[in-house]
Amino acid sequence: MGESFPMTGGDGPHSYTKNSSLQRAAAASAKSMLTSGILENLVVEHSSKMFAVADLGCSTGPNTFIAMDNIIEAVTQKCEIKGYCSLPEFQVYFNDHVSNDFNILFANLPPDRKYFAFGVPGSFHGGLFPKASLNIIYSAFALHWLSRAPQELGDVNSPACNKGRIYYSNAPHEVGQAYSLQFAKDMESFLAARAEELAPGGLMIILMPGRPDGTLPSQNSLGPFIKPLESCLTDMVDEEIIRNHEIDSFNMPLYSPSMEELRKLIEKNGCFGIARLETLPPMSVPLPSVEACRSGFESILRKHFRSEIIEQLFERYPAKIAGKPPIKASDGFTIGLFVILKRNI
Amino acid sequence: MGESFPMTGGDGPHSYTKNSSLQRAAAASAKSMLTSGILENLVVEHSSKMFAVADLGCSTGPNTFIAMDNIIEAVTQKCEIKGYCSLPEFQVYFNDHVSNDFNILFANLPPDRKYFAFGVPGSFHGGLFPKASLNIIYSAFALHWLSRAPQELGDVNSPACNKGRIYYSNAPHEVGQAYSLQFAKDMESFLAARAEELAPGGLMIILMPGRPDGTLPSQNSLGPFIKPLESCLTDMVDEEIIRNHEIDSFNMPLYSPSMEELRKLIEKNGCFGIARLETLPPMSVPLPSVEACRSGFESILRKHFRSEIIEQLFERYPAKIAGKPPIKASDGFTIGLFVILKRNI
Repeated sequence: MGESFPMTGGDGPHSYTKNSSLQRAAAASAKSMLTSGILENLVVEHSSKMFAVADLGCSTGPNTFIAMDNIIEAVTQKCEIKGYCSLPEFQVYFNDHVSNDFNILFANLPPDRKYFAFGVPGSFHGGLFPKASLNIIYSAFALHWLSRAPQELGDVNSPACNKGRIYYSNAPHEVGQAYSLQFAKDMESFLAARAEELAPGGLMIILMPGRPDGTLPSQNSLGPFIKPLESCLTDMVDEEIIRNHEIDSFNMPLYSPSMEELRKLIEKNGCFGIARLETLPPMSVPLPSVEACRSGFESILRKHFRSEIIEQLFERYPAKIAGKPPIKASDGFTIGLFVILKRNI
Repeated sequence: MGESFPMTGGDGPHSYTKNSSLQRAAAASAKSMLTSGILENLVVEHSSKMFAVADLGCSTGPNTFIAMDNIIEAVTQKCEIKGYCSLPEFQVYFNDHVSNDFNILFANLPPDRKYFAFGVPGSFHGGLFPKASLNIIYSAFALHWLSRAPQELGDVNSPACNKGRIYYSNAPHEVGQAYSLQFAKDMESFLAARAEELAPGGLMIILMPGRPDGTLPSQNSLGPFIKPLESCLTDMVDEEIIRNHEIDSFNMPLYSPSMEELRKLIEKNGCFGIARLETLPPMSVPLPSVEACRSGFESILRKHFRSEIIEQLFERYPAKIAGKPPIKASDGFTIGLFVILKRNI
């Protein structure tokens, strides 16, 4: 089932809870697309007594709470437009890896929520729910996490060996291809599992980072956001604090597909029809702060590198981003993809 | 909604995970009653695609995993006896207070489980699930926890003032009555919530400590198990380490009803028919070890007393139980109650 790399738990200064404003801003910019997408495409029956929503890769909040409120608001609006005299009872399933900090997620649940709340531990690359049990499946900024980095990247005999780098930007073509192939495998298992779980008339809504059509993985990627971290690591290799083999065997399991690539994978899977496949409104994105970088990557770095290098690594980080401007939308790196899928009957 | 007193989390030496063998032994002794109770009383349809079980007050495991396996085994047997060619998909909802250690619960989920697993944070004295959404509701050794200790116990002007004690054994009649009244209120909110949630044909199965019919709360209770802890606390009052008002305002929110008392509360609520109301096989129960005592009571003690007295308190505890024999079944304290309820239509 691959590995798990949870966002940093708790509610301290390096937690995801305190460092997820970027994902929140991107999701907020998608709110009107989400609402109109639900109003246009969701089938909700007068007789529906229950309505189940799942957030796959929800992390620890608060973003997931805002998203779930937006979805329930849109479904409520749809019921009102249809003239239904009563609303279904809403259930919200919060999913993330077993190692996610569910205790913090539960402690922060909004007290005035209009739904029954459940936690669902496990990888979304496998099945998590009974057949046809979910009315809306939502996943925001989670599907760019691969189940694992492609294994050939660490193989010195492979043309996809990714020596001295931790990501595929500016890497040989084969490295980007290996990432692309891993993403295709992961999407296939993701879509196959969701096809079982989505109820008739239901929707799957995906927000994720992507790259412009017609570009290669090695050209456009999340690279600029990873670069400062990579630069700290390579400095530490030069200073012999980190050994060569340690960095050569480490690769970030993140991938941003083009819209065309994603479309092909969905069509190849064949279980879903594409109701929407669009880009999110463009926005400039600052390089991750040291807190944001820790909140996203500390767990995976600790897993691979020796614990004693972690503090040093993050001490070096602020100097790498000092004075650097945000990545502009016009640079073509920061495309956000917005997808709504319906189950093919 | 009252207060929450979770079992000690984590998997350390004082955790519930490592100190729940007594509850496990009691539940194991009930396995055949549970199985025959399900076989005789559960209505499961050929057309049922999903089957939802909830464990209310599940704590952190492993007891809940064993119980859920036993229930699923019995339901499977029932389907086989009925000659159904396929089994429903099982969902198990693990419920406990928000402050329960769900992270440990999720980390310990059996990898070979035959169900989809969900965590449900919140008090079972309120609603937790949509209407008619559960096929079996199970609760073992959780309902003796009151939502709070009766407030009049700490009121010096009340005849139910419980000065110098932390429990109702050997207390004035009014103290036991106050506990009994609080239990009645809590059971009413528990039963009202469950009546909404139990699906037609479903069962509610309750295991809990009780006392023999015809005895008063002050005579027979969980008192012997609380006594060593109370004795440590009163010693510390005598030594002026704990102030009088601190112990006077502290009362254990635990209650063990008689079978007759429980029957009356269920009948008064009116939503359920009693399929079984029996005692569990008698067993001798050792006084709680210091680890077991911490696993159950450390959180509530820390909430009330100053943190600095906690270590001292538990250092004194082993001497209080040294050489003491187990509480024998024939003493009449250690009755276990076993209840199966059906929803009245």
